[in-house]
Amino acid sequence: MARRLLVVGGDAAGMSAASTAKRALGDALEVVVLERQRWTSYSACGIPYWVAGDVPALDDLVARTPEQHRANGIDVRTGTTATELDLDAGKVVARTPSGTETFGYDELVIATGAEPVSPDVPGADARGIYGVQTLADGQRLLEALQQDPQHVVIVGAGYIGVEMAEACVRRGLETVVVGTHPTPMPTIDSDLGEQIAAEMREDGIDVRTGVTVTGFETDADNHVRAVVTDHGTIETDLVVLGTGVRARTELAAGAGLPTGVKGALPVDDRGLLDADRNVWAAGDCVESRHRVSGHQVYVPLGTHANKQGWVVGRNLAGGDARFPGIVGTAMTKVVTLEIARTGLGEQHALDAGFDPLAVQIDATTVAGYMPHARSMTVKVVVDRPSRRLLGAQIVGREGAALRIDSFALALWNEMTVDELMMTDLGYAPPFASVWDPVQQAARAAVSRLGPPLR
Amino acid sequence: MARRLLVVGGDAAGMSAASTAKRALGDALEVVVLERQRWTSYSACGIPYWVAGDVPALDDLVARTPEQHRANGIDVRTGTTATELDLDAGKVVARTPSGTETFGYDELVIATGAEPVSPDVPGADARGIYGVQTLADGQRLLEALQQDPQHVVIVGAGYIGVEMAEACVRRGLETVVVGTHPTPMPTIDSDLGEQIAAEMREDGIDVRTGVTVTGFETDADNHVRAVVTDHGTIETDLVVLGTGVRARTELAAGAGLPTGVKGALPVDDRGLLDADRNVWAAGDCVESRHRVSGHQVYVPLGTHANKQGWVVGRNLAGGDARFPGIVGTAMTKVVTLEIARTGLGEQHALDAGFDPLAVQIDATTVAGYMPHARSMTVKVVVDRPSRRLLGAQIVGREGAALRIDSFALALWNEMTVDELMMTDLGYAPPFASVWDPVQQAARAAVSRLGPPLR
Repeated sequence: MARRLLVVGGDAAGMSAASTAKRALGDALEVVVLERQRWTSYSACGIPYWVAGDVPALDDLVARTPEQHRANGIDVRTGTTATELDLDAGKVVARTPSGTETFGYDELVIATGAEPVSPDVPGADARGIYGVQTLADGQRLLEALQQDPQHVVIVGAGYIGVEMAEACVRRGLETVVVGTHPTPMPTIDSDLGEQIAAEMREDGIDVRTGVTVTGFETDADNHVRAVVTDHGTIETDLVVLGTGVRARTELAAGAGLPTGVKGALPVDDRGLLDADRNVWAAGDCVESRHRVSGHQVYVPLGTHANKQGWVVGRNLAGGDARFPGIVGTAMTKVVTLEIARTGLGEQHALDAGFDPLAVQIDATTVAGYMPHARSMTVKVVVDRPSRRLLGAQIVGREGAALRIDSFALALWNEMTVDELMMTDLGYAPPFASVWDPVQQAARAAVSRLGPPLR
Repeated sequence: MARRLLVVGGDAAGMSAASTAKRALGDALEVVVLERQRWTSYSACGIPYWVAGDVPALDDLVARTPEQHRANGIDVRTGTTATELDLDAGKVVARTPSGTETFGYDELVIATGAEPVSPDVPGADARGIYGVQTLADGQRLLEALQQDPQHVVIVGAGYIGVEMAEACVRRGLETVVVGTHPTPMPTIDSDLGEQIAAEMREDGIDVRTGVTVTGFETDADNHVRAVVTDHGTIETDLVVLGTGVRARTELAAGAGLPTGVKGALPVDDRGLLDADRNVWAAGDCVESRHRVSGHQVYVPLGTHANKQGWVVGRNLAGGDARFPGIVGTAMTKVVTLEIARTGLGEQHALDAGFDPLAVQIDATTVAGYMPHARSMTVKVVVDRPSRRLLGAQIVGREGAALRIDSFALALWNEMTVDELMMTDLGYAPPFASVWDPVQQAARAAVSRLGPPLR
């Protein structure tokens, strides 16, 4: 008889695990996926571009529908929320559209993802306050935008906050962004963060940093009408929350499974959470190893979720795949300013016990004499004694951000700046200077480190 | 008394060596540079874009003028051609604008660059046949183009040939490109080369591949009027040569110094050509080690020249810098098609003793649902037993080519495709799919290699 794989959560990680295992094992594996919502395998990261109007329709964000997965032999149950996990019995109880159902399993994959963190302040449950975590969230926000609001306040100035600010200002709204950090994007050091704030202001976004939201004022219908902060009250028609997410782990924790960093599930590199009881986990509900700091971290991101799901799927099929950890690469843009980072910032490098040197350069995206050359700033953080690259951050115009991949691979391979400056990166005037900006930054660090290359 | 450094050749490698050493040693080092031409530190790679009209003026291609170098304490002698090297006496004889002069040295850097290879056929010395190796070449060609020629034939379909074809067709000329290889760009495997040929034809360029030039017909004034090939005669008003270059090593060879691959100078990784007699060399006149094949190769390219010059400069100043070799990264574009390659192609991998598997994927430059998503094709070559990446080639639209850097760094670090697919490359919908095209290609190779990841 076929073994049964039960997957809880039908987005990136869960469906990757399900598909990869099913493709390898075919009829030898029965695969059931429980998904709370109506959609599977969608890009939550695309929601800001859907709201902005770049992406025409919800369907465009769905990589594979439940029907498509079913055609591949996967039994996808949408509208089905797992409520209880019995590890000893190997069973999950779920609320389905028609009542309650119990699903037995031989192998379980927990891919329950993340949920938005709402500010714990008065009025946070008011109407007119929108998250942008799920397609349903996006749909609700787009419906609200059709009522022609004039004013929006975005709470949180991280990736989602910045992306939603662009979306709202491009839709013609008066847009205020409120963030607690001194500059937008806390994962970018504040020297570069200042450039982001300047760009946002130039784009017509009212950026208010170092500001904490203390509550929401509502009208008689419990609809938000103002955001209250420690620096005054901001009237608004609606609010978008970009205040981060946390791992959704009630199901696992309720069954007595362990939780780790920020409440995320501490899986091993094969994706196993409980080897004795055949429990795996992947995606936005698990923690990862940061390869530079060596610490366990919680970095929910679609690209990790897909890879972790693939690893679990291969291992379910008898493989020995490993998720080797992350280096903290991330990127975004605000209007025409591209933003990217990888590895450790200055403070994180200190916290992790390194002796960091930070060096910043200005460069052009392509050979400076080409008409489409644009400015970019690169900051690198280097460990003085070992001369190893620890991190890099980029802020610049079109063509700047993708260079973060070179830094990410340098971190991955524990390269020194001496070696990085000598690598064979692509060169041609329409694409790069004769010293690529990555190598200009490495060379500047080598100069500052002083002693001749040895 | 200051030691004297004599540098022969004032472009990328020579001036990098001179500047780096002078900056480190100051008055303790007297630096004299002999340069045949009028310019120093210029971008020959930019000439096609100058001809195309993207770059307004010759001066834009000069990174640092002789005057600027002189202001930094370097005695630059332009219009000065070194004609004889006496290693035992430590002297170079040169033809100067006013006669002959002899320059003694304590340390010598040979940075004589490369010279175009002219087809060895009747009529090759006709007027109206232009190289594009030096700024003077570019100037002569631009003067000829002001005579409003209608027809141009470009001999050679490599980087320069393709770039000059774009320049000429954008200037409105009827442009024919003739190449001996079955597809344009011999460093790109012919499956992808077909895409390049198709793009060129779509751009209005008459591409004739598998064709060998056998001579040039001239008029009574010895001006070219047709290119004769083994596939017929092509009438033309002018000819541009993109038939490659060879190391310019008469001075070194004449003094009894060794030559290596394709006549280039076999320096060690510190840039030393003759340690006993204080002779260094760098740039387009030296050979390099290919880190993937392990072979010595001749790959003249500005980015290597700059790095090799820097290495020699640091070593002249008492450092122990090393040029660690190359992986064969190169890129270009033709109109809107971007082209990039690194490492070994299929045949080269076989020749180097590997057991190559080639895998090709189609992807999009950014998340497929974004409006600016464009198509790209990625081919990877992998060694079956070790699962190591051996090479990669990319052909695609805007945003495709720069990804070659990720492959270049993967080669540099001898990564397997299993590891490459799991690295932490940047992800955000405006920049990449959730599996970056680099990782899609690696994943496709992992699938094709078959056995589960171990």
